[in-house]
Amino acid sequence: MTDNPARTARLGQNQYGKAETRVVRITREGELHHIKDLNVSVSLSGDMEDVHYFGSNANVLPTDTTKNTVYAFAKEHGIASPEEFGLLLARHFVGTQEPIRRARIRIEEYAWERIGGPDARHSFARTGGGTRVAQVVHDGERAEVVAGLKDLTVLNTTGSEFRGYRKDRYTTLPEAYDRILATDVSARWRYAWTGAEGEGAPDWDLCYRESRRHLLEAFAQTYSLSLQQTLYRMGARVVESRPEIEEIRLSLPNKHHFLVDLEPFGLENDNEVYFAADRPYGLIEATVLRDGAEALIPADLTTL
Amino acid sequence: MTDNPARTARLGQNQYGKAETRVVRITREGELHHIKDLNVSVSLSGDMEDVHYFGSNANVLPTDTTKNTVYAFAKEHGIASPEEFGLLLARHFVGTQEPIRRARIRIEEYAWERIGGPDARHSFARTGGGTRVAQVVHDGERAEVVAGLKDLTVLNTTGSEFRGYRKDRYTTLPEAYDRILATDVSARWRYAWTGAEGEGAPDWDLCYRESRRHLLEAFAQTYSLSLQQTLYRMGARVVESRPEIEEIRLSLPNKHHFLVDLEPFGLENDNEVYFAADRPYGLIEATVLRDGAEALIPADLTTL
Amino acid sequence: MTDNPARTARLGQNQYGKAETRVVRITREGELHHIKDLNVSVSLSGDMEDVHYFGSNANVLPTDTTKNTVYAFAKEHGIASPEEFGLLLARHFVGTQEPIRRARIRIEEYAWERIGGPDARHSFARTGGGTRVAQVVHDGERAEVVAGLKDLTVLNTTGSEFRGYRKDRYTTLPEAYDRILATDVSARWRYAWTGAEGEGAPDWDLCYRESRRHLLEAFAQTYSLSLQQTLYRMGARVVESRPEIEEIRLSLPNKHHFLVDLEPFGLENDNEVYFAADRPYGLIEATVLRDGAEALIPADLTTL
Amino acid sequence: MTDNPARTARLGQNQYGKAETRVVRITREGELHHIKDLNVSVSLSGDMEDVHYFGSNANVLPTDTTKNTVYAFAKEHGIASPEEFGLLLARHFVGTQEPIRRARIRIEEYAWERIGGPDARHSFARTGGGTRVAQVVHDGERAEVVAGLKDLTVLNTTGSEFRGYRKDRYTTLPEAYDRILATDVSARWRYAWTGAEGEGAPDWDLCYRESRRHLLEAFAQTYSLSLQQTLYRMGARVVESRPEIEEIRLSLPNKHHFLVDLEPFGLENDNEVYFAADRPYGLIEATVLRDGAEALIPADLTTL
Repeated sequence: MTDNPARTARLGQNQYGKAETRVVRITREGELHHIKDLNVSVSLSGDMEDVHYFGSNANVLPTDTTKNTVYAFAKEHGIASPEEFGLLLARHFVGTQEPIRRARIRIEEYAWERIGGPDARHSFARTGGGTRVAQVVHDGERAEVVAGLKDLTVLNTTGSEFRGYRKDRYTTLPEAYDRILATDVSARWRYAWTGAEGEGAPDWDLCYRESRRHLLEAFAQTYSLSLQQTLYRMGARVVESRPEIEEIRLSLPNKHHFLVDLEPFGLENDNEVYFAADRPYGLIEATVLRDGAEALIPADLTTL
Repeated sequence: MTDNPARTARLGQNQYGKAETRVVRITREGELHHIKDLNVSVSLSGDMEDVHYFGSNANVLPTDTTKNTVYAFAKEHGIASPEEFGLLLARHFVGTQEPIRRARIRIEEYAWERIGGPDARHSFARTGGGTRVAQVVHDGERAEVVAGLKDLTVLNTTGSEFRGYRKDRYTTLPEAYDRILATDVSARWRYAWTGAEGEGAPDWDLCYRESRRHLLEAFAQTYSLSLQQTLYRMGARVVESRPEIEEIRLSLPNKHHFLVDLEPFGLENDNEVYFAADRPYGLIEATVLRDGAEALIPADLTTL
Repeated sequence: MTDNPARTARLGQNQYGKAETRVVRITREGELHHIKDLNVSVSLSGDMEDVHYFGSNANVLPTDTTKNTVYAFAKEHGIASPEEFGLLLARHFVGTQEPIRRARIRIEEYAWERIGGPDARHSFARTGGGTRVAQVVHDGERAEVVAGLKDLTVLNTTGSEFRGYRKDRYTTLPEAYDRILATDVSARWRYAWTGAEGEGAPDWDLCYRESRRHLLEAFAQTYSLSLQQTLYRMGARVVESRPEIEEIRLSLPNKHHFLVDLEPFGLENDNEVYFAADRPYGLIEATVLRDGAEALIPADLTTL
Repeated sequence: MTDNPARTARLGQNQYGKAETRVVRITREGELHHIKDLNVSVSLSGDMEDVHYFGSNANVLPTDTTKNTVYAFAKEHGIASPEEFGLLLARHFVGTQEPIRRARIRIEEYAWERIGGPDARHSFARTGGGTRVAQVVHDGERAEVVAGLKDLTVLNTTGSEFRGYRKDRYTTLPEAYDRILATDVSARWRYAWTGAEGEGAPDWDLCYRESRRHLLEAFAQTYSLSLQQTLYRMGARVVESRPEIEEIRLSLPNKHHFLVDLEPFGLENDNEVYFAADRPYGLIEATVLRDGAEALIPADLTTL
C-alpha cells in the first residue's frame, strides 16, 4: 500500500471484477443430459491504492482472468449450486492472490425444464417463475452467503383490503374492502453459516426450494390488511421454518390493479375487470430477522 | 372522403388506435377464481383523409374509446380466448362505425398458474415458457386470424451439427459436429377460417396448445443439420398436424453457445462448458405453407 | 433447387443472416479521430430449399461469414454512411455468391459528440436525440434504400387540440382545447434512387440531416387538431422538400400527458402539472407518398 | 409502537412509498414555455411495527397520498431543481406526519432541448447524454443530499493502456498498449450541506453542471493506465473542484471494444475496426473522499 500524501481526495471503498459472465455447464449421465445456466459477477477488493493513484497494475488480477476462472472452475469442479460455485470462486481469489482480501461473487441461475416427450433426454425450455440468485462474500476468514430470488410475479384475486389508514390534505384514496393484490417478489435471505471449520453447510438447493415454497404459500394464505402485513408474514414464515436462515429482506412493488369504472357504459363492475397499471407503483421493503440476529443485508436492493 | 388536390404529397395506408391496453378479467365459480390477463392493441382504418389533410376529427372514434370498449367488452362478453375476444372487438368497430372499414386487434396473453397449496383458489403466479399472441383482422366481410407465441426459449444440448457449408474469403468458422442449438421461438400461424356464414370456428385454445406442443416436440426430436432444417420441421409439423392452419412463419434467432477454449488452462472441454453469447446472433426466418395455400403473413416479424 | 414432392408443407419466403453485428470504425486525421458506430444486420435469400428440406448446407454461406464480412469491409472500404456501407455489403453478397439472390442490410447508427474541451481530439460522448437507421435491399438488379430514424422523443407544451370527434356508447373522453402533444418519432423514407447505371446517388448524410430537421420543424410548427394531422404535415414536409424521397412512413405513439386533477387539494391546474403515462398509448401510423409513387414500405414498422 | 412478544421473527429496517411518479411541470414566461420532467420515488420510515405485525394501517399514510403530494407540490412550489423539490417533499412528510421519522426522495430528471427554429417557444426534444439523479434524506434534524448522473456513455479512441498486471494460471489476456476505453458513467456525490439553520445551500444546478463537466474532462484528459486510475481522477477532480462535495462514488463498466482479428482475410487492423461487446464487462467501482470526510454513500449502486 502506498500513501497519497499531497491530495485532498482520498480513495475509499473500492471493488472491481468481471460482471455477467454467462456460463452454461452440461453434464451427462449416459444419454441423459443436465444443464446449469448461470450469470456470474465477480467483485474483488484489497490492496488497490496504487492502481487508483498511480495506474500501477501490479496488484490487479485482470477481470479477463476472473472470467476465465469461472469457465475453468465450471469444468474442474462442476456446478453443484450457485452457492457452492460462488464459495469455490470466492475462496480461490482470496486464497491465491495475496493483494485480494475480499471477494464477492453474485450469481443468477436460470431454470430449464425438459421438453420433447417422455424420451427426451437433452432438450430443454427455459421456465419462468422467477430467477434464483445467490451472493457469496469471503474475506479470508468468514463466508457470508445470501440467497434469494427475483421477478417472481404473484397475484391474489381476493382476500386483500386496505383501509383505516392515515389521511391528510392530499389523501383522496377510497378505502378498499376487496382488491387484487399483486407483486413481483424480490427476496434475499442470509444463512447463519459462516464456513467455520467443522460447521456443516446447509443443503443450499433444499433451502432454496423450501424458502420459495414458504414465500408463495404465505403470500397465498395470508388474508391481507396491507402489503406490509403480507410482507412480514412471508419473511416470518421463512425465518420460522428454516433454522439455517438468520434474516430475510423483501422488496415488494405493489403492482396496482385498478377496478375499471364501467358505470358510464351502464355496466356494473363487480370486481371483474381491472386495469393493470405500470407506474407509479407502491414499493414496500423490509427486513425480517431471527430474534438476536444482526441485520447485515443492505436496506437497498434497488439502485440509488 | 375528400381530395387533396393541390398537394404533391398524398396519404397512403394509415391506421390508428390504442395500443397496449392492459386488461385483467376475473371470473368466479364460487370460491374458485379464474384469471385472464391480456395486452390489447387496436388499430383502425377507413375514411381518414380529412383528419390527416385538414385535422377534421369527424370520422375519428377516439383511441380512448377503443380502450373503453376493451374494458366494457371484457365485462359484457368475458374473455374466452384472445382470438375470440379479438373477433368480438374487430367486428364491433367495423360493424358500428361507418367510417371504419378495417380493424386489426393484436393481443398478448400472459399465463398464470395456481399457487398456495391444494386449497388455494384465488392465488396465482405468472408462468414463463413464452407469451401467447393473436391477431385478428376484419374488413366487414372476412376475418383473418393469426395466432402464435413468442419468447419461448429452447435448447438442445446435442443432436445438432453445422458443416458442409459454402466458404469464401471471409469464412473462418470451423465445422461443428456436435453443438448446442438454442433459440427463442417466435411463431405465427394463420387459420384457414375466414368467418364465413356457417363456417365452424376452430377450437382456438386446443389449436394453440397443440401447435405449441408440436413446435416443442419437433425442435426436440429433430436431429439438426442446420437451424433452417429444424425450422422447416417445426413449421411442417404444425401444418401437417393441424388442418385448421394454412401457413406458419417462424423467426428463430440462433442463440450461440460457444465452446470455451480451456486448453490454455490444461483442461479439455468435452462439450461441457459454454459461453452463452448475446450479440451478434444468427437469425433464421421462413414461412411454411400448406400446399396450395397463399402466403399472407408478412415476412417481417421484427421491426424495420 | 430440389423439389419436396411428398410433402403437404412447402417452404415459402425465407431469409437468414447474422443480426446485430456491432462494429466501431475509427479513422484518424493526424491526432484528430473520427468514430462510426454501427449495428449491422444481414439477411440473405436465394436457393435455400435444400437446407430447409434436407439440411444440406451447400448453398449456405455461414452467418459467421457475413459477420466477418462486415468487419473486413469496415477496414477495406471504411464507413462513409450507413446507406453506402449497406449498399457495399448487399452488392457483395448477391454479386459473389451464386445461390444468394437478394440481400437486405439493416443498420442502426449511434451518434457521438466530442467532449473534453477545445483540445480534445479523441474523446466522445454518446448523444441522444434518436437513432439513425437505414435499410438496403439488393436483388442483383435494383437497389432499394430506406432510411430513417427512431426513438426521437418530442413534445409541444401547447398548440394542440383534440375535439369534434366521433362518439359512441363507450366514449367518455372530454374534448381538449389545449393539451400537451408528445411522441417518439419513428420514420422510414424510401429514396427514388435504384442504383441504375449512370443514376447519381443522393447525398445520404445531407438527406438524413435535412429530413430530420424537417420532421422536427413540422412537428414544432404545426398547430395540431389531431396527431394524424401533425403526422401528415411531418411526412408531407419531407416529401415536398426532398425530391430524392418517394414516400415516408411514420409511426407515432401518442405519449399521453394527462392533466392532474388538483381540485381535491384546493388547487387549480392551469395546464401546469401533468402525469406522463406509459400504457396504454395511442398509436398513429401512416404513409405519405409523392404523387405517382408506389407504396413499398411495409405498413408495419412494429412487430406482429 | 407495539411489541411482538411471541415471535422469533422480528421486524428490521423497513420503508415504503410510491415509486416512479412521473410529473411534468410547465411554466410560462408569456409565450416562452419551460419544462421540468421528473420521475419521483418516495420512501418513508417510522413507527411501522403495527402495520407489519397486525395489519393496522393507523400510522400509514397511503402511497397514493405521497403521489398526490408530488403533484400538488409541483403546482404549489414549482420545481426549481430535483434537489430543492426533494427537500420540500422530505421535510413535508417528516414534518407533518408524526409516525414518519425519515423520508427519502429519489428523483430522476430528463432533459429537453428546444426545437423548431429560432421562433420556437414551446417545442422540445428529449436529449441524451445521461440522466440527472438526486436523492434527499431527511430525518427531522438533518438533511443529506446526494446528486449524480447515470447512463452517460463516453469513449476514448486512444490514450489508454492496460499492462503490468498480475498473472496466474488462468491469465491469457495480452497486454494492451493502445486500446479503446469506453464506459457508462454512473456517479453519485454527497454534499456537505446538512440543512442546519443558517447554513447556505449550494447552487444545485451549478454544482450539477460543473461536476458533470469535470467528470467528462477528467475522462477525456487522463492518459489511462487502467480504468481504476481514470475513475480516481474523475472522482478526485470533482472533490478538488467543488468544495460543496464531500465524497463521490463512481461505478464504471468497462465496455469492452475488442480489436477484430482481420489477419485471416489478409488485412491488418491498425486500431481501426472494433467489436463492441455486451457481456461480460469489467466493472470498476470506488468512492473518492475529501480528506477527513466520512463515507456515507453505500458501496453498491447496483442491485444485489
